[in-house]
Amino acid sequence: MSEWRKDPVVDRWVVIATERAKRPTDYKCPVDEKFQQRCPLCPGHEQETPPEILAFRRPGSQPNQPGWWVRVVPNKFPAVRIEEKPLSWWDGMFQAMSGLGAHEVIVEAPEHEDDLANLSERQVEEVVWAWRSRLLDLRGDTRLKYMLIFKNKGRTAGASLFHAHSQLLATPLVPAEVAAEIAGARRYHAQKGSCVYCDTITQELARDERVVLESQRFVALSPFAARFPFETWILPRQHQHDFAMIDEDDVRDLARVLREILKRLQVAVCDMPYNMVLHTAPVNKEPEVIYHWHLEVLPRLTIVAGFEFGTGYYINPTPPEMAARALRNAVIPVNREPGLYALEVGKNV
Amino acid sequence: MSEWRKDPVVDRWVVIATERAKRPTDYKCPVDEKFQQRCPLCPGHEQETPPEILAFRRPGSQPNQPGWWVRVVPNKFPAVRIEEKPLSWWDGMFQAMSGLGAHEVIVEAPEHEDDLANLSERQVEEVVWAWRSRLLDLRGDTRLKYMLIFKNKGRTAGASLFHAHSQLLATPLVPAEVAAEIAGARRYHAQKGSCVYCDTITQELARDERVVLESQRFVALSPFAARFPFETWILPRQHQHDFAMIDEDDVRDLARVLREILKRLQVAVCDMPYNMVLHTAPVNKEPEVIYHWHLEVLPRLTIVAGFEFGTGYYINPTPPEMAARALRNAVIPVNREPGLYALEVGKNV
Repeated sequence: MSEWRKDPVVDRWVVIATERAKRPTDYKCPVDEKFQQRCPLCPGHEQETPPEILAFRRPGSQPNQPGWWVRVVPNKFPAVRIEEKPLSWWDGMFQAMSGLGAHEVIVEAPEHEDDLANLSERQVEEVVWAWRSRLLDLRGDTRLKYMLIFKNKGRTAGASLFHAHSQLLATPLVPAEVAAEIAGARRYHAQKGSCVYCDTITQELARDERVVLESQRFVALSPFAARFPFETWILPRQHQHDFAMIDEDDVRDLARVLREILKRLQVAVCDMPYNMVLHTAPVNKEPEVIYHWHLEVLPRLTIVAGFEFGTGYYINPTPPEMAARALRNAVIPVNREPGLYALEVGKNV
Repeated sequence: MSEWRKDPVVDRWVVIATERAKRPTDYKCPVDEKFQQRCPLCPGHEQETPPEILAFRRPGSQPNQPGWWVRVVPNKFPAVRIEEKPLSWWDGMFQAMSGLGAHEVIVEAPEHEDDLANLSERQVEEVVWAWRSRLLDLRGDTRLKYMLIFKNKGRTAGASLFHAHSQLLATPLVPAEVAAEIAGARRYHAQKGSCVYCDTITQELARDERVVLESQRFVALSPFAARFPFETWILPRQHQHDFAMIDEDDVRDLARVLREILKRLQVAVCDMPYNMVLHTAPVNKEPEVIYHWHLEVLPRLTIVAGFEFGTGYYINPTPPEMAARALRNAVIPVNREPGLYALEVGKNV
């Protein structure tokens, strides 16, 4: 009927519905009206955001003017600020710190109607370069210990702007989720002498049940204990703890794979709301070389509710094997760009 | 501007917006149409659910017929089942178990339009008795290690049925969230020799900044590191690790306080979607007497998104002090039941 599955790295069990499972066509996707007529992220509205931190732009164009294809600005309503002093204090038995950090918006394309899944490969590469560049720049501030790149796409996944964008939130401490993954990787390494993510890749490639696609440098798979229907992770095949260490070939390959996964999700299910998080090793402390960075795409077709908040566990009505099969079999409509889908796709089942 | 706050028990930091904070009137509440015309939880439709496990009903009325005021049935689409054998296995490096557990629905009132917040005190008491009764009954099954009582109210909080109900999900393992709270309570006890929840109550009552109300036996407060706007916890004043140990006076008092909190949330903000979780000590293992059971009401006015999934931390745009003040000051309309709001309310500020 259903089974409990444990994530191999952290203490997270998931109930996977194996019998009365929900197939791709069982999901209703929310229709996200192209909200927001007057968009502060559109070219020509550069004055409506704080001054840009980074922009890839046409030679000769001026900062904070049109002419860019990727633009990074501080969040206008930041959760945390780089200007804060690193103060911490106790309020009786409670611990608090100043709201130190950084909160940036990476505008992924100039066109308001564009979507990360529908950008050209070249443009997705540019987005990845922007992520990398911001991560490298911010680690110069030694008060910061972690930088999370994430994306909220669609209103029900938390996006307040329609225009394609990702976000960066840098924190003065290592987030609990990352700390738990590192602790799990260390535990596994102490027992087996190897990397739990590397071993996962090896096992999954041998089984070929949950692999969605593999490229020269990356593997995309439905994790064994996926929390969400169609949850998909992208991992570098070679062990690498720090995302910012990726080279030009990695960037090109990652952009292709990410774009392909997002397109396949659209084709196999729908243009769904999703969150995406990039988990990489912390910075400005002993390097966690045992860690293995990866990108998690978390579709929001189910609602996280009382059970999840009360337990930290999840109920996933679509087995990852079913999700992987649907994503492998998704036939992406041919478009203008030739040779775009020449990825080496895992055996279709 | 904002500050980082740490939960005193678990590794959970929350960014609290202290300056550009959202007041109660800044929230738009989703209008939940009274969905579902044909409701399987209404009297007369008893055949549309699996046979009842427990019902409080008029003398002489028949099981699975009308005449009940609280009714507990197995979930028709259970995530886990009591009939499963307790098997566990390894799939290479992955660990899995059979879908053992229990998944029940507690129908809180016969009337389709009723809501836990608007039931009579007597009726809320009956709901609490039903929770207690199910918890006691299920712990007879020694394969089960935890029973989570939770409630999803409103579609956006995960409710698929409109009719007022809570749920029980029993698991063959102690959930990560509860295990983390127990570990935190143990750590604190080892350091200070006292219960972290008891000490929190003492400190909060002395400060009177985040206390919403206190009754003879319970305290309701906005936690220091609240994840959600208007998040409210109800804790027994006296140390008690096991919810099922509550006596008649506790039940009466808890019902009053819970109902009052839900009403105040409606008045201070709106009829919001929320989750509620009951955290109590695990069963069928060494009793965790250091633990302190409590009820968490988690309003869903914000969207849990990439930052939260990527870090395990939260951003809360309404400081708990502001939330507590709004809830303390909420004036509840007088209704038919005299003496209903004679609770000893914390000083109004």
